[in-house]
Parts: sequence; structure tokens; C-alpha cells
Amino acid sequence: MNIEEGLLKGEKRACARLITMLENNDQGAIDIIKKLYKHTGRAYVIGVTGPPGSGKSTLTDRLTKELRKKNKKVGIIAIDPTSPFTGGAILGDRIRMKDLSLDKGVFIRSMGTRGSLGGMSKATWGAIKVLDIYGADYIFIETVGVGQSEIDIVKIAHTVLMVMVPNLGDDIQAIKAGIMEIADVFAINKADLGGANKTQLEIEMNLDLNEKKDYRPSIVQVSASKNENIDKVIKKLSEHRKYLDETGEMIERRKRNAKLEVIRLVEEELMDLIMNKALEEDMLEILSEQIISRDIDPYSAKDNILKLIKK
Amino acid sequence: MNIEEGLLKGEKRACARLITMLENNDQGAIDIIKKLYKHTGRAYVIGVTGPPGSGKSTLTDRLTKELRKKNKKVGIIAIDPTSPFTGGAILGDRIRMKDLSLDKGVFIRSMGTRGSLGGMSKATWGAIKVLDIYGADYIFIETVGVGQSEIDIVKIAHTVLMVMVPNLGDDIQAIKAGIMEIADVFAINKADLGGANKTQLEIEMNLDLNEKKDYRPSIVQVSASKNENIDKVIKKLSEHRKYLDETGEMIERRKRNAKLEVIRLVEEELMDLIMNKALEEDMLEILSEQIISRDIDPYSAKDNILKLIKK
Repeated sequence: MNIEEGLLKGEKRACARLITMLENNDQGAIDIIKKLYKHTGRAYVIGVTGPPGSGKSTLTDRLTKELRKKNKKVGIIAIDPTSPFTGGAILGDRIRMKDLSLDKGVFIRSMGTRGSLGGMSKATWGAIKVLDIYGADYIFIETVGVGQSEIDIVKIAHTVLMVMVPNLGDDIQAIKAGIMEIADVFAINKADLGGANKTQLEIEMNLDLNEKKDYRPSIVQVSASKNENIDKVIKKLSEHRKYLDETGEMIERRKRNAKLEVIRLVEEELMDLIMNKALEEDMLEILSEQIISRDIDPYSAKDNILKLIKK
Repeated sequence: MNIEEGLLKGEKRACARLITMLENNDQGAIDIIKKLYKHTGRAYVIGVTGPPGSGKSTLTDRLTKELRKKNKKVGIIAIDPTSPFTGGAILGDRIRMKDLSLDKGVFIRSMGTRGSLGGMSKATWGAIKVLDIYGADYIFIETVGVGQSEIDIVKIAHTVLMVMVPNLGDDIQAIKAGIMEIADVFAINKADLGGANKTQLEIEMNLDLNEKKDYRPSIVQVSASKNENIDKVIKKLSEHRKYLDETGEMIERRKRNAKLEVIRLVEEELMDLIMNKALEEDMLEILSEQIISRDIDPYSAKDNILKLIKK
């Protein structure tokens, strides 16, 4: 199979192969994306985040089904926390709707965060381009957990959908405050279980405190498992997209994302160069021994490595 | 106040001032730490992690009180998810036990993850040295959330204490799997609420699957809010520390941490240099515009910046 042709024809197998190549840090994948880069820029990228247990993947699956009714092509990338030792994506076996994965117009992929600085790996940025070339109208980037990766999502998405649930404890409330600001649309999921109005009020109050933002995020109560109000979420996402387009904010976000990606790429390449150099000369090993025996401090060790590079 | 002298005398004010300087990226702070670096290496660093709502800070506070009975000095650093926009630590106002903060032998500090690659900032690494010089026998690094920062904790701690709670949902179970491997001691908190035996069994089963590890993590059921079994957690931590010391693993961990810190320091300094250079020449701005108009792809943009640096 020719991957380039396959991808331009919208074949899922080509997508899968190219993303695997990206994960293996295969330069061939980069070459293909470089060549096809002019075919990107069409997809609308939505980051889906929120606390554990809020039902992000179920909601994403429902949104996808709804979009398929309108004949939209959809890509889903689920970011999984990667084990620091095995390096594997642990949620690769997460159960998604079976009929979605059989659908020619839906591409789903779990990706680990291995080798990533801040949770969003080079391969993920690449995969978004792959899905864009594949012809996805919508790309969902779905995160797991709460923390850095939620904040990183803002760096890659056009719109951030924050999935909340009623009756979160205090600890989650505190976390929520930190990631609250990155949301463009709030979906209060599991609204059928009660308590959603209270959660909505809390979010509204939080938004009142944050008057700086030009766009006031909208809030939708939804039940993904009961398939209720899914269309309303899509409507709110579309409204935000329209706002981005009409105000020029979309161009700003695209520029910001492009800058961040270039910075990240520079960083990764430089660190590879340095680490190879430092390892080659056994320098890291020697320095780390000197550090723990207190013969040198880490800051001076850093200066030594930087001197080596300048040579 | 002379910060150096104050710190060597174990004054909390000196700690606080120096850490603030670190957060402000003040070179003066680095100079002081470099000078006093030979006074580090005594503290035992414990990473405290686990899902939101597991009661990490309550348990840390209880452990601290227990250690104070034995006249041990304790430092606590609470890592907070930082807002991507305001840059502030959002949990700075988290309520800790009041009597702890009045205790001369306990230093507590909330730190954001701003400017950090992967959630653990340069300032945090520095703060650990400050607390070590201050004379802390134990330093607790407490994280919020689940994800990258939990995995990063392994890079800084000697022992990782994983705080679990009974009756976690499926989503949390999945996350748990990813961070499970980094634990040295498991504390099942809120054991008084029931369900702890089932959780213990689940953890045991998970550990059975992970036979590679030389050290089988121990599991303690505890109730931080009822102050039950706190001494047992301390005992298990001490056992792990003894294992590290006796097997030479402690030296390995110290070396690994030293390497990671040096790499991080090199990375941060290089990126600062590059970004200043690229910003100076307006290069990032121009490249990002070319990227979104598809005149250049991000990979070629990265090569352009690297060429600039080599000049």
C-alpha cells in the first residue's frame, strides 16, 4: 500500500500505519506529512477534558455518532497516561463503541504520552495532521486525568470542551478551578442523575469571576449514556467555532498552536542532540556521581554540559 | 536578614525567602544554593501521590505530626496545577492543619508548576535543596491530580507513597494502572468507610502481575481523618528506605535524580536562549504565519530555527 495515496483517499489503514510510524519516530512519516502538509488546515480540532469519571469517552462517542448522521468524518485521539517504565499506553484497550470503529468515516486511536514534555507528544501533533489529511471534519483530542495534560490540550485544540459531572468532592473542585479557564464549552454530563443545576450554578459563579475573557463559555446539561442533549453540545461547539472564525480568534489560535509546535520540535531535536553527545562522552554518568558525592552542584554540572555543546 | 546564615540555622523565614527567589528565577538564589550545596543530601524525600479526593494532604499532615513526636524536622511541598493564563498556584489557600504551620520544625509551601516541562519545575527541585539545607529530615512532595505530575514525582523522590481510596470508579481504576508502577508504599486511606479489603486485593493482584520489580510494595490501610494507623505508614516508609540503603538502590535513585535534574536545567537554559533569539528576530511570528498559510510545514520551520542557532 502506498501510504500517501491511501491517506489522500481517506483510507483508515493509511492513517493507522502513518501514526505508528510517527510513534516509532520514523523520519519517513515526517517526510510524508511535510509533503502533504498543504492538505491540512480543514479539520476543526476539539479538546475534550474533565475530571476522571466524567464520561469523556462516552460523550465523545455520542458526539461522533451525531456528527456521522450529518455525514461528517471524525477522528478521535485518546491521550493515555503512559507508564514511566513500560512506555506503553495503558488505556489502549479501553472499550469504545464497536460500531464506531467499524465505520469508514471514523478513525479512533489511543496514544501514549511517552517521551513527551508536558504530556502532549510530538507524535500526537503529527497524528492530528494525519487525520486532517485523511479528511476528518472534526478531530476530538480526549485526555485522561486532570493536570498538566488538560492544560496542554489548550495548545492543540481550537475549542476546549470541558466535561463535568454533578456532585464532585472538594478536591476535584479545587482542581477544576485550575483548568476551568481553558474551557470554551462546558458539558455537565450525567445530568439525569440529579445535582446538575447546582453544578451549573457553581460554574456560572466561577465564570462571573473571570470577566477578562471575551467569550463567555456556554454550559449544556447532557446525558451521554442516555443519549440526551447530544445535539445541544454540538450546537454550542458550532457557536464557539463561529465566534472564533468571525472575530479572527481562530487565526490567533492557529498561530499560537503553530508557534508552540515549532518550539516543541526545536526542543526535542536539541535535547536529542545534547543527550546523545553527553551520553557518548559518559559525561552524565560522571557528573551525576560528582553531584551525589557533593563534589559539584547540579547548576555547575549544567554549565559544564552547555560548555561541551558550544564546542 | 542574611539568608545563608538563616538557612543554616534552620530559620523558616530564610527558607521562604529563598524559595520565593527561586520562583522569581533570581540568580542570587541559585548562587546561595550552589554555595551551600555541600549541606544537602541528608533529607529523605517522599513523593505523595494518588487520585483526587484520596486525602493526600490530610495524610501528609498526619504523618508530619507523627514525625514531629519523634522530633524530626519536616518540609512539605504541595505541587499545584498552575493556571495556564494567570500563572498562579491555585491551591495556595488550601487549608492545612494550623498548628503545623506554627511549628518551627515544619515548613509548608505550595508551589505552582508554571514554566515547567512535565509538571515539575526547576524551582521545585531547588526548593527541595533549600529544605534539605534548612535541616528537614523528611521532605514530602505532594501532588494534585493524576497524570504527568504523578509520573514526574518518581524523578524527585526517594520513596513514592501512593494514597488510594476504596470504591474508585472504572475511570480511576484505569488511571491507577498507569501510576501503579511508580509506588513503593500504598496507603489505602479512608479505610474506616469500608471497602478497603477489596481495594487491597485489587492492588495485590496488580502487584502480582508486575513481578519484575525487586521490591514488592507494601500496603497499609489507614484513616487519616481518624488518625488511625499513621504510625504503620511511617513504619512501611522506613522499611522501604532501609531497603534502598541496604541494596545500594538509594545511590542509584540519587544518581538518576541528579541526571534528570541536570538534563532539565540544560533544557531550560537552552530553550531560554533559543526563544530569546527567535523572538528577537521576530522569527517565530513570521514562521507561524507561514505555517498557517501552508507556505511552510512545522518541521521545516523547526529546521530553520535550528540553523539560526548554529550560526
